[in-house]
Amino acid sequence: MRDVAIVGVGHSLFGNRYDVRLDELAWEAVSEALKDANLTVKDIELLIVGCAGGWSAEALPAVVCSEYCGTLPKGSMRVEAACATGSAALATAYNFVASGYVDIAIALGVEKMYESPTPVQIELIGRAGNYFWEFENFGLTFPGYYALHATGYMWKHGLKEEDLAEIAVKNHYYASMNPKAQFKKQINVETIMQSRYIAWPLKLFDCCPLTDGSAAIILASEDTAKKITDTPVWISGIGLSTGTANLSSRDMFLPLEYSGLETAVEAAKQAYKRVGIEYNQASKYFDVACVHDCFTIAELMAYEDLGFCKRGEGIKLVREKQTYNGGLIPVNIDGGLKAKGHPIGATGGSMIYSLTKQLRQEYGKYADSKAQADIKNGRAIAHNIGGTGHYAYVTILSLEKPHM
Amino acid sequence: MRDVAIVGVGHSLFGNRYDVRLDELAWEAVSEALKDANLTVKDIELLIVGCAGGWSAEALPAVVCSEYCGTLPKGSMRVEAACATGSAALATAYNFVASGYVDIAIALGVEKMYESPTPVQIELIGRAGNYFWEFENFGLTFPGYYALHATGYMWKHGLKEEDLAEIAVKNHYYASMNPKAQFKKQINVETIMQSRYIAWPLKLFDCCPLTDGSAAIILASEDTAKKITDTPVWISGIGLSTGTANLSSRDMFLPLEYSGLETAVEAAKQAYKRVGIEYNQASKYFDVACVHDCFTIAELMAYEDLGFCKRGEGIKLVREKQTYNGGLIPVNIDGGLKAKGHPIGATGGSMIYSLTKQLRQEYGKYADSKAQADIKNGRAIAHNIGGTGHYAYVTILSLEKPHM
Repeated sequence: MRDVAIVGVGHSLFGNRYDVRLDELAWEAVSEALKDANLTVKDIELLIVGCAGGWSAEALPAVVCSEYCGTLPKGSMRVEAACATGSAALATAYNFVASGYVDIAIALGVEKMYESPTPVQIELIGRAGNYFWEFENFGLTFPGYYALHATGYMWKHGLKEEDLAEIAVKNHYYASMNPKAQFKKQINVETIMQSRYIAWPLKLFDCCPLTDGSAAIILASEDTAKKITDTPVWISGIGLSTGTANLSSRDMFLPLEYSGLETAVEAAKQAYKRVGIEYNQASKYFDVACVHDCFTIAELMAYEDLGFCKRGEGIKLVREKQTYNGGLIPVNIDGGLKAKGHPIGATGGSMIYSLTKQLRQEYGKYADSKAQADIKNGRAIAHNIGGTGHYAYVTILSLEKPHM
Repeated sequence: MRDVAIVGVGHSLFGNRYDVRLDELAWEAVSEALKDANLTVKDIELLIVGCAGGWSAEALPAVVCSEYCGTLPKGSMRVEAACATGSAALATAYNFVASGYVDIAIALGVEKMYESPTPVQIELIGRAGNYFWEFENFGLTFPGYYALHATGYMWKHGLKEEDLAEIAVKNHYYASMNPKAQFKKQINVETIMQSRYIAWPLKLFDCCPLTDGSAAIILASEDTAKKITDTPVWISGIGLSTGTANLSSRDMFLPLEYSGLETAVEAAKQAYKRVGIEYNQASKYFDVACVHDCFTIAELMAYEDLGFCKRGEGIKLVREKQTYNGGLIPVNIDGGLKAKGHPIGATGGSMIYSLTKQLRQEYGKYADSKAQADIKNGRAIAHNIGGTGHYAYVTILSLEKPHM
């Protein structure tokens, strides 16, 4: 297995992007990544496009992005794993490089969700749950799914709505410093508590927005990476797991009782095995994390699913502000899905963009003054979920080369 | 780069499959592949699902197929490359094994096209062309696109409609012997010539049908493959290329002048380079081929794009029946897309299924009496196109291990 490094990263402005087409939005990230790597598009041998699709009339996103970005006639394909699509694209590009098939590949994530009218968006996202039993018969959509997790967690561990609000406060605080974020206003607990219920106990400000955006990650094999950059960021472990879409098929009497996602635990354990650490070592091993906070409860579950703390102790991390810069492990200091935005296919790549910047100590200007001091071991983790754990992808980055 | 072998193949009945759901259809191929490899589902480490999707209410095909086939909690994702989706899934699974990430993976292709009413099918397929300029403004759909290729070829090389009919006659002849084919009736040139025009010069019997179906290919690394089977079929080369969706953007004054697909030539050259042969050696190097005959003209162009003969000489191969068993190079002796059927996501895998059976000498019962004698060098080639060359994937199989 060849070692693979990130040699360039790019990121579009997230938000409502009526101003650009899908392929133009893609180029915003790809061009920035090329510049970051000091490469031209001719150097790219393969383009893997993460795009959940279905929002726009464009049926073949990888084709139009390849053409507009100038990678033709190089190979490409589209990859989809619901909201973990970006991480699936990264894992795919990684394996094409690790195998020796190509030396340089781009994992591009891109999504334009605002091209569909709202009822279509709700229908399309709802179908990504369990279509027949839960969506069609019971009307469950994603706020409802995650509300079930929130009530499960409340019942088990005494979670309060104010605790969830604190997670939104943190992520909006960091988004306010991220020039690429969708929401740049800080908010407070009171505002969140007064916002309307979407699905009890989740309120408007517990939910991430719909977003248009793109992110591009250029990967290179060890020998090639060394020629391209003095600051390679290595991919040292990937874990991926799949679960049933049908929440009612998950065993209610498992230890988690809906207060966590089994597939996230499984993906984390796979990835940790690859870097040789135990599950309970995670908070010491990693300097920073990006986790999948599509709803505030999802970030809380991620703390525990990744082993940053014991079951039920996630609330303590929130109350003690341990996931801010300077805390036990800073989480989503780019604003997260919650406030940076969640353009489905681009979200996984956006996490890798943020973590790469952080590991390279290039992210201080976006975060608070304590951000740079947090990078001690040079290791970061991304946690990207599709559905309610239908997919879980965990990616570990390191400044140290994995196989010495 | 680790060598990767096909250790098991499975294939559903192709046709109108109202009798099964998408996940049940997937299991038809997966269960057969597991039986063929003498493995259980617990042995599978990764499931890559090729599914173009959009035809049914099911938004996350890889999730429901993973659950029904019993691979949970193992990782999965969906891959799409238009009508080359099945080959993209294979290339992805191949690289996850070649890299050393997993030892055993399944590339599953599955599609249920009949779940959409016909106008939706036409809309969805049409959008896979160039959406805005050619589909929306000019009403071009795929029979029209390939009709442009046919008239281009006619003008350049003196093609007759009867020549195209002969390709359909061959593929229906072979499908009549394939128990998994959608159409099992032989047809003659007269019937084809009397069928109605869909887009001149292409008639009803020049066009492949819509199809429901699945195919599954189990891949294993060299060490693992040797434990599983005595008859591994190796993947010895893959080529992939992407082209503009916009036919009007392709240079009319290139040597091909619409009589071939540039991306198919590019993908073939990439794959040939990996096995170390020249472009013009192909017809001698390979024993058999499966090519992308979504329309009869597409098969004719494939002969030349793959270098089986010189430009313009494809007609001669047809007239001399050189692509039947016993000829220069037998092509689509499983019936091809034309008569076996074309379930978009499953087509690439179906080609690999057929070629694996042929190389293993297990395909004689489906083909004519000369079929077994055609396997001399133990090498086969699959040519899978998305759109009108938006994607081209070429896969080379061999009985001999690639890296000795």
